[in-house]
Amino acid sequence: MNGLRGKRDPVVAIVGATGAVGREFLALFEERALEHGELRLLASARSAGGEIAYRGRAHTVRALSREALEGVDLALFSAGGAVSKEYAPIASEMGAVVVDNSSAFRMDPGVALVVPEVNGALLDGIGEGGAIIANPNCSTIILMLALHPLRERFGIERAIVSTYQAASGAGAAAMEELRSQTRTVLDGGAPEPKVFPEVCAFNVFSHNSKVDEATGRNVEEQKMIDEVRKIWGDDSVRISATCIRVPTLRAHCESVHVMLGNAAGVDEVRRVLADAPGVELVDDRAGNRFPTSLRASGKDAVLVGRVRVAGDAATDGAGWARSFELFIAGDQIRKGAALNAIQIGERLLGRA
Amino acid sequence: MNGLRGKRDPVVAIVGATGAVGREFLALFEERALEHGELRLLASARSAGGEIAYRGRAHTVRALSREALEGVDLALFSAGGAVSKEYAPIASEMGAVVVDNSSAFRMDPGVALVVPEVNGALLDGIGEGGAIIANPNCSTIILMLALHPLRERFGIERAIVSTYQAASGAGAAAMEELRSQTRTVLDGGAPEPKVFPEVCAFNVFSHNSKVDEATGRNVEEQKMIDEVRKIWGDDSVRISATCIRVPTLRAHCESVHVMLGNAAGVDEVRRVLADAPGVELVDDRAGNRFPTSLRASGKDAVLVGRVRVAGDAATDGAGWARSFELFIAGDQIRKGAALNAIQIGERLLGRA
Repeated sequence: MNGLRGKRDPVVAIVGATGAVGREFLALFEERALEHGELRLLASARSAGGEIAYRGRAHTVRALSREALEGVDLALFSAGGAVSKEYAPIASEMGAVVVDNSSAFRMDPGVALVVPEVNGALLDGIGEGGAIIANPNCSTIILMLALHPLRERFGIERAIVSTYQAASGAGAAAMEELRSQTRTVLDGGAPEPKVFPEVCAFNVFSHNSKVDEATGRNVEEQKMIDEVRKIWGDDSVRISATCIRVPTLRAHCESVHVMLGNAAGVDEVRRVLADAPGVELVDDRAGNRFPTSLRASGKDAVLVGRVRVAGDAATDGAGWARSFELFIAGDQIRKGAALNAIQIGERLLGRA
Repeated sequence: MNGLRGKRDPVVAIVGATGAVGREFLALFEERALEHGELRLLASARSAGGEIAYRGRAHTVRALSREALEGVDLALFSAGGAVSKEYAPIASEMGAVVVDNSSAFRMDPGVALVVPEVNGALLDGIGEGGAIIANPNCSTIILMLALHPLRERFGIERAIVSTYQAASGAGAAAMEELRSQTRTVLDGGAPEPKVFPEVCAFNVFSHNSKVDEATGRNVEEQKMIDEVRKIWGDDSVRISATCIRVPTLRAHCESVHVMLGNAAGVDEVRRVLADAPGVELVDDRAGNRFPTSLRASGKDAVLVGRVRVAGDAATDGAGWARSFELFIAGDQIRKGAALNAIQIGERLLGRA
C-alpha cells in the first residue's frame, strides 16, 4: 500500500502545465471530476507567471523548483526527458509519487512501465513514500490496448506494425508548424521545415527521431520494441515497427499484422477486441466505416477495426487462421499520454 | 512482332485526356521527346471542345467515339473502367494497340498485365493487329519495382504491405477536395466529405474502395494481391495488404515487410535495390533522409529506403536474416500510371 491510497485531498502537481499534454491533464481532471486538494501548475521559468483557466478560475503557472514540489502527493510530469531526469528523482525523494510521461525512466529496471489495462496490478505494489512510475510512449500504449487482449486469449507469436503518427507527438509547436506550412502550400508558397527535418504539410516521412546506424531503427521504433517487451515481461516477444509521420494533427493510427499463438476465427478475434477494456471496435465492412484519426481524436478509447485474416495466412476450411490484420487509431495526447497517466494516478489513489 | 514496332509516325490517342493521368501523358510525351504522328485527345462529350496546350500549340479535345478511334495505332486509356470496357475492345478490333490504365482487363487471362521492368518481355510477343495490354494498379506498380529485384536475387517467401495513399489515386476531383477541405479546417470550419466517404483533410482512413463482406479486404487490397500473383505468374505468392488514405496530394508510400527465400545481409539487399531498374535508393541513416511523398512527387523512379533487418527477424552472428523492412515512395500519377503506360508504349514501338 502506498501513502496515496485513499488520501482525500492529495496535493497534485502538473509539471509541464503549458504544453499540449499539460493542457490535456486539466481537461481530463474536469471531465472526470477528479477530486484533489491543492493543484500546482508548474512549468519552465519562461512560462511562469502566465494563467490557465481551470474549473472556472484562473490558476497562475509557477516555475518548477525543489520548493514548488514540497508537500506534493502526486506529480504528473510531461515536460521532456531533461526536466524529468533532474526533477522526478527530487520529487520522489520528497515523498511524491511521480507519473512520468517522458522516456527518461521507462527502461530503468527499478521503474514500473504501466498501461493500466495491461499491467496496472504493478501499481498495487507501490510502497509507502515516493516513487516514479513511467508512462509508455504514445504509440506503444495504443498498440498494447489492441494486442494485450489477443495475447491473453490466443498468445502472440509476432507483430509487425506500421504507424501513421500525428504532428502532436512532437508537441504543440509541431502542430502549429503543420498548420502554418499547410496554409503556405495552399497559398502557393514553399514552406521551410523547422520543428521537423522534412516539410510536414501534405507529406509522409519517416519518424524524425534519430536512426541507429547499426540497426537502422529510429528511436521511436526501438522504444516500441523495448517497451512492449518490458510491459509484458518477455524479452522474446518478436515485434517489428516502422514509424512514420503523416500530416494529421493529433491521433495516431497503426496498421498491425499479428500472428497469434493459436489459430482463431475472425469472429472470435473481433469478440475478444470488442470486450477488451479501453477498446472500441469500429469495424463496419458494409459501410466502409473503420478507425480514422479524426474519429479517434478526443476519444478515451482506442479504436480497432479492419479485423480480418491476413492475405498471406494459411486458413483451414473453416476460415481459422493464425495471422490477422488490424487497423487501430488512438488519441495520442489522450490515451497515448495524459489519460494513461491519470488512470495510473487514479489507481494509485485507490479510485480506479 | 506487332504492327507498331518501328512505325515512324504512329497515330496516338489519349482517352481521358482531361484527367490527372491524361495530363501527365502529355507532360511525359514532351519530357521524353516521344515522336509520334497525329495526336488525338479524346474525352467524354462533356469535356469535348476544350483546348489543351501541348508542344507549344493548343489541341482541341474531341468526344470519344468509334469514329474518333479510326486509324489509331496506339491508344492510351485512362478514363475509368466503364469507358475502357466499352471502347478498348472497339479500338483493339479496329487495329489499335490499347494500353489500358483501368482495372477492366487486368485480370482477364487473355490480357498481359505489364510492369516493363518486371515482365516487359511479354510485350515482345504481342502479335500483328490490335491488342489490349493492362497497366497494373498504381500501388502494385510501385511495390513491384522494389520487390521484383529482391525476388530475382533471393526469392520471396511473403510480403506484408501497409500503404499511405495520396488523394490523386482517386483523381483530380479528390485532389481538389483535399485542398478545399484543408482550407476549411484551417479557417475553423467543418468540411463535408463528397468524393471520399470520410473527411480527408488532416485525416487517415481506410481506402475508399468497397470492402468484401467475406474476406474483409477492400478492392484496392485484393487488386494488389491478385495483380502481384498475375505479374509473377505465381498463385502461391503470399502477400497481405492494408490500403490506407493519407492527406497528401500525389505520391503513394508503402511500408513493406518482406521475408526472403534465402538469408541475406542488409548491405547486399541495399545493393540489389540500388542496381534495380526504375529504383532510386534513398537511405541515409545519419541524415534521417529517406523516401517521402514530396521527394517522390514528379520523379520517374520509385524511391526505396529504411532498408533494415526486421525487428522480429532471427539473425545469425553475421547479421544475415530473412526478414527485412523497406519504406518506398512512388509518384502515383507518374510511375504508378502514366509513365508505366508510356514505357509499355515505347517498348511496343521498339523504342525501349
